[in-house]
Amino acid sequence: MQQTIDDAGRVERARQLYDALASGDRSALDALLHPDFVGHATQGLPFALGGTYQGAHAMRREFWGRIAKSFIARAQPESFHVLDDGRLLVQGRYVGEARNGGGKLDAEFIHILCFGEGRITGLSQLTDSERWVQASQPAAEAAPSVAWRTLEFEVTHGLATVRLNRPEAHNAIDATMAEELCSVAQRCANDGAIRAVLLLGNGKSFTVGGDLAFLSQAKDGELPGLLRAMTGPYHEALRTFSRLDVPIVAAVHGATAGGGLGLMYCADIVVAADNTKIALGFGALGLSMDGSNSWFLPRLVGLRRAAELYLEGRVLNAAEAVEWGLVNRVVPLAELPAHALACAERLAKGPTRAYGEVRRLYRDALGATLSEQLGAETEALSRTAATTDATGAIASFVAKRKPVFHGR
Amino acid sequence: MQQTIDDAGRVERARQLYDALASGDRSALDALLHPDFVGHATQGLPFALGGTYQGAHAMRREFWGRIAKSFIARAQPESFHVLDDGRLLVQGRYVGEARNGGGKLDAEFIHILCFGEGRITGLSQLTDSERWVQASQPAAEAAPSVAWRTLEFEVTHGLATVRLNRPEAHNAIDATMAEELCSVAQRCANDGAIRAVLLLGNGKSFTVGGDLAFLSQAKDGELPGLLRAMTGPYHEALRTFSRLDVPIVAAVHGATAGGGLGLMYCADIVVAADNTKIALGFGALGLSMDGSNSWFLPRLVGLRRAAELYLEGRVLNAAEAVEWGLVNRVVPLAELPAHALACAERLAKGPTRAYGEVRRLYRDALGATLSEQLGAETEALSRTAATTDATGAIASFVAKRKPVFHGR
Amino acid sequence: MQQTIDDAGRVERARQLYDALASGDRSALDALLHPDFVGHATQGLPFALGGTYQGAHAMRREFWGRIAKSFIARAQPESFHVLDDGRLLVQGRYVGEARNGGGKLDAEFIHILCFGEGRITGLSQLTDSERWVQASQPAAEAAPSVAWRTLEFEVTHGLATVRLNRPEAHNAIDATMAEELCSVAQRCANDGAIRAVLLLGNGKSFTVGGDLAFLSQAKDGELPGLLRAMTGPYHEALRTFSRLDVPIVAAVHGATAGGGLGLMYCADIVVAADNTKIALGFGALGLSMDGSNSWFLPRLVGLRRAAELYLEGRVLNAAEAVEWGLVNRVVPLAELPAHALACAERLAKGPTRAYGEVRRLYRDALGATLSEQLGAETEALSRTAATTDATGAIASFVAKRKPVFHGR
Repeated sequence: MQQTIDDAGRVERARQLYDALASGDRSALDALLHPDFVGHATQGLPFALGGTYQGAHAMRREFWGRIAKSFIARAQPESFHVLDDGRLLVQGRYVGEARNGGGKLDAEFIHILCFGEGRITGLSQLTDSERWVQASQPAAEAAPSVAWRTLEFEVTHGLATVRLNRPEAHNAIDATMAEELCSVAQRCANDGAIRAVLLLGNGKSFTVGGDLAFLSQAKDGELPGLLRAMTGPYHEALRTFSRLDVPIVAAVHGATAGGGLGLMYCADIVVAADNTKIALGFGALGLSMDGSNSWFLPRLVGLRRAAELYLEGRVLNAAEAVEWGLVNRVVPLAELPAHALACAERLAKGPTRAYGEVRRLYRDALGATLSEQLGAETEALSRTAATTDATGAIASFVAKRKPVFHGR
Repeated sequence: MQQTIDDAGRVERARQLYDALASGDRSALDALLHPDFVGHATQGLPFALGGTYQGAHAMRREFWGRIAKSFIARAQPESFHVLDDGRLLVQGRYVGEARNGGGKLDAEFIHILCFGEGRITGLSQLTDSERWVQASQPAAEAAPSVAWRTLEFEVTHGLATVRLNRPEAHNAIDATMAEELCSVAQRCANDGAIRAVLLLGNGKSFTVGGDLAFLSQAKDGELPGLLRAMTGPYHEALRTFSRLDVPIVAAVHGATAGGGLGLMYCADIVVAADNTKIALGFGALGLSMDGSNSWFLPRLVGLRRAAELYLEGRVLNAAEAVEWGLVNRVVPLAELPAHALACAERLAKGPTRAYGEVRRLYRDALGATLSEQLGAETEALSRTAATTDATGAIASFVAKRKPVFHGR
Repeated sequence: MQQTIDDAGRVERARQLYDALASGDRSALDALLHPDFVGHATQGLPFALGGTYQGAHAMRREFWGRIAKSFIARAQPESFHVLDDGRLLVQGRYVGEARNGGGKLDAEFIHILCFGEGRITGLSQLTDSERWVQASQPAAEAAPSVAWRTLEFEVTHGLATVRLNRPEAHNAIDATMAEELCSVAQRCANDGAIRAVLLLGNGKSFTVGGDLAFLSQAKDGELPGLLRAMTGPYHEALRTFSRLDVPIVAAVHGATAGGGLGLMYCADIVVAADNTKIALGFGALGLSMDGSNSWFLPRLVGLRRAAELYLEGRVLNAAEAVEWGLVNRVVPLAELPAHALACAERLAKGPTRAYGEVRRLYRDALGATLSEQLGAETEALSRTAATTDATGAIASFVAKRKPVFHGR
């Protein structure tokens, strides 16, 4: 017998849901949620939390459970509106903080709840995912001093150097490296003394992408979960790098492939050794792609060439990569480290605030109208014109002196 | 004397409108609609239904009439809200089905009705056009067995081959070919056995685009309608091809021009014979452009070169087309069919599900933020990692065997 | 002591705000606005009005004050809604007209007002900025006959020629030139007899961009305001040029740099002399960028090369600019004026209406989905097919005559 509930019943069920979530009451959740429950979470959430969850169990364990691992937070409903079709629109705020010394969380949400057979059958969430991302990044002082296992990391004279350090595996990205890249990206984001970042790979290759030796050990049915667990922190690393306010130089050589290409895409300047081979590799494994390949390739090389790289497994040499706009220039392998270092050091001595503004302008440009972008340029220009770097440089220009920048 | 109507009168007029549409009562419609009525239909609707309709007559004949030709559907209003400015916001659903064995239609709508002199002066429609597009595509079993007049079509070992077949007219696209391309694209979309598509042209050219001999016979004032009638099904063909879940190879040669370029754009891999000449041609005829040229050219060659192709009528040879990223590679004319066939056969034996995911990722990438796309990559990767193609290929990789894909 | 106000009090404060704005009552405004007031104005507004204003003083002087300089307009509130969080949503219309013979303004707005300590602490404005832009463009007949100080301007046989004319300063853009470019762009937009525009620079360079000699005289803290005052009209000029319905040819030579590149971007066809040097230059001055560089570079050359141009100050010669898709072709310096003139004259004799449609199609394409763009192409094609230029050209084609276009 189909059980229906009236408007008041819907609001009551919703209140019970928020109470059960706040108290972590699993049996109450099980009673409230329909077994065929479907949850939709906002795409941009950190830790790959965005997406669709099929079933009450998946929602509880993979979504709410994973939030609870990283955040001490509470969904506070503020208003309930029954829609014409019987769905319930709930407005409210997530408040709390990230674990591990992360920041405060205070983000508005809208939930649309669906009902059937007396239970909640669906929840579509819309929230300000940027606030979640920010909260998830630990403050600089809270960043633990880390003994890196798959990376080398140092900061010297404002230049942060990150070396992928699994040379025996051609710097294949395993779960540990994914997490360490995520940590190191957050370090770069939070250390105000860093004025440029240099990415390098130790050994014969920059990186071959995801670690197939690791993935091939997956038991039946485990592969999707394993990939998701790696892709989560790795994508978070790429997003953090791409949103840094300081320039990034990547020095690539040898095999530069698969998801590992993401580290190349999020850099501003890419210098390639003459032995570089760029390849996607996913197709031969029956996989689609990750590492932001699908976002950057259509923008950097166009849809026609992006299709060829994936469908036909085309391998690009260094000169072709320059011609296609993936790489800025080629140098002999022996000169790569010195060349890239000199380039990164120059950028670390540049007008850091202006560099940050332009990184943001370029990043936002592709989703903006010309009018919006013109407005954003004016705002950014006004801000940089107020820096001592700019006023000093203009005075130097008039006096025909070389400008000196301090990054402020 | 200006006649005004109160809120209740507006809702009553609206109800009468939906009744008149449901019963097909023309005289009631004529009485309800102001002669200067303007209708705005959602752009993405199939059969080129989107756009603006000037006058009650145009709306009745060209919009509602053309819907009725392709759908047995009804607009069911569910709620009426009078806005502050006197306009009426109507929420509801379109329900019904497509004629010709098409699918069910169930799509939400919002209509904003304007009133003046006691009648309805405007209707702005917002609806989920994707649901209309899906409903409009006939299920595979319902597809009629067709004797093609302007095409050759066959499916062998998972490869669908489409040959434009008006060699005497350099495969100029007339109304029949536009409709047959639309049908054949839907066949490709609905036949689950098809794992790749190959597009070729019989005779001396791939296609010169719209058939000028046909268009030049238009009588005074007929040309816009004639073009619209051809562009409707042709654009639907391009949209269907571009949304296929399987890869497309296009083999072009000789004249490849005008609206016909759309068949090249919606392919993933384009192989060009060395005698290929690519040209837009529209400007010399005093026309703007169709065939998705304006969508693809700025993305594939950039705004600067897109302007040159149109405004200066620049003709590209095959090598230039490769350099500009329009074409993947050039082969001698004599080798084109064999080369393209081998390429398409390889793709037809690939990991079809992963190919489909990447087609979607690339297609959606240009409108997505980096964060959204990273989330979409993770979802797609999880799905493909669950396919037997992927698990088999990873095992083959570890065992150093060549993978075999079955498309599932 | 914190002073709170109830819902009625909020609506009353809001009404007082609109009254004070309408009467220009400064002391009333000062009493109503909190000193820490923050205003957000819609990005696309003309005269660089969009953006954020910190403080009641900045809002009054830089936003409302600058509106009042260019418009005789009034914000008419129509409805007030108190939101759950105590903010007030105001719907209404801006009505009035632009000064200087501009057009009528009638644009909807939504304001979200925030309150604190009994005053208004914030206003977020959303309005239809396009209507403001349109209103701001003076009608053709109202355009004053100008004695240009930094430009030469003439219209001959449908071709408008604009020559930057500060040769002694390498056509550096100062406040006067920015304003004159804005005026001349509006002239081009409003003179229906103009069928193409040619942009040239007198002297040794096309333009070096913003006038540093002028900017370096700024006193402490004046630079941001000075830049904003120049960028406002200059960006308006670029926006107007980019939205013209007729094609633009730019002939560049020598130094073509900085914000001045915007004049090159908004052209359709760019011819470069062999001595052309293209450079951004901003980084060396500690500045971000303006002149629409950040919108066009990622689209024309890709993010990788855009980063190199800015961060490494790369200078492109003419051949490189062609290869990167910034420029259409290179000619010897001595031939530049004649070549560019011939090119522009050809375009001025073309099918002007179709050219205008394609300019709009290309411009809108980058923000549109494929489906939307296909619909827009059909509409544009129908409109151009109804022109005498198109029917004549198709008849000429069939008769193997050369078409003659009249721009209608």
